[in-house]
Amino acid sequence: MTIENYIKRHFKIEVEFFPFTVYTKSFKNNDIITKIHSTEQNIYYLKSGIVEFTLYGEKHDRIIDFFFEDDLFCALTSLILQKPTEIEVRALTDCAVEFLKYSEIQETYKHSLLANQISRKLTEQAYILKFNREVSFLKHSAHERYFELIKKRPEVMNRIPVKKIAEYLGIHPESLSRIRKSIS
Amino acid sequence: MTIENYIKRHFKIEVEFFPFTVYTKSFKNNDIITKIHSTEQNIYYLKSGIVEFTLYGEKHDRIIDFFFEDDLFCALTSLILQKPTEIEVRALTDCAVEFLKYSEIQETYKHSLLANQISRKLTEQAYILKFNREVSFLKHSAHERYFELIKKRPEVMNRIPVKKIAEYLGIHPESLSRIRKSIS
Repeated sequence: MTIENYIKRHFKIEVEFFPFTVYTKSFKNNDIITKIHSTEQNIYYLKSGIVEFTLYGEKHDRIIDFFFEDDLFCALTSLILQKPTEIEVRALTDCAVEFLKYSEIQETYKHSLLANQISRKLTEQAYILKFNREVSFLKHSAHERYFELIKKRPEVMNRIPVKKIAEYLGIHPESLSRIRKSIS
Repeated sequence: MTIENYIKRHFKIEVEFFPFTVYTKSFKNNDIITKIHSTEQNIYYLKSGIVEFTLYGEKHDRIIDFFFEDDLFCALTSLILQKPTEIEVRALTDCAVEFLKYSEIQETYKHSLLANQISRKLTEQAYILKFNREVSFLKHSAHERYFELIKKRPEVMNRIPVKKIAEYLGIHPESLSRIRKSIS
């Protein structure tokens, strides 16, 4: 699994010559990948591991996303605007990633049709994820959101602590326990 | 105000030759622009008027966005995926729009660097709007969200019925009345 393959598979774009340089890196469990209030400089592809996105608040923090093997991720608003991120990106397990550098992508945008096509597709995908999450929160109960999550990501229950899943679903850990009991 | 000007102003892209054909249309107050469960075919630029986006639910409907003069809008998830929309797009006043056709844009994508740059920027902007709305809901109270809205869009209070503003903020109209009284 590589970022180049991911793009070929997902975006149905003919890629004769991949227009970006690909870098690799490893993170240990609990390492910070993108620090809160820093400016995002990379687009990551997760080769292995789980990553969590946390929104820090005055009252309480909230996990707003999990990413798994074969997902792309970055603090996208910060990357686009080149402004400090409100999201912290953290490794929830040991992780291996490939990544592209923003500064190099920006250069490539000026002349490469392919680079712009790829980035358009990436941003479209990120938009749809955000949109679906909004719809899910507005239309579905916590119970339904939990079902949706384990249907889409059955590995969640074994690989992520219940407390974090509850935070992601926007409910109390005890409510999640009740939902899980009512199922089994 | 035209869509071509909008793009030049917002995206700092050199546009010698605008790569899309621009169409115009008018809608009357309460006209449906994009019907629920239809597939979005256009990207709109609002020359005048106000547009609302409603997410229909089994329990209750929710207004999730307002758009004003000099805004771009469309049922973007439906447009990207070419699948039926869960959102209905409706004119809240008489509206004049310019629009681009999806079928024509798709053709242009294949060869025009500029078309891809523009669409990348449009999608980035839509993503940031969605992201900011998520952050706003998770971090701020209804009181704070109301302040944010009238700071960004002072015209809202005079041009949109209170019931609809409350629906957008995710609160009861009576709660909104209390917030407004506590301010004045």
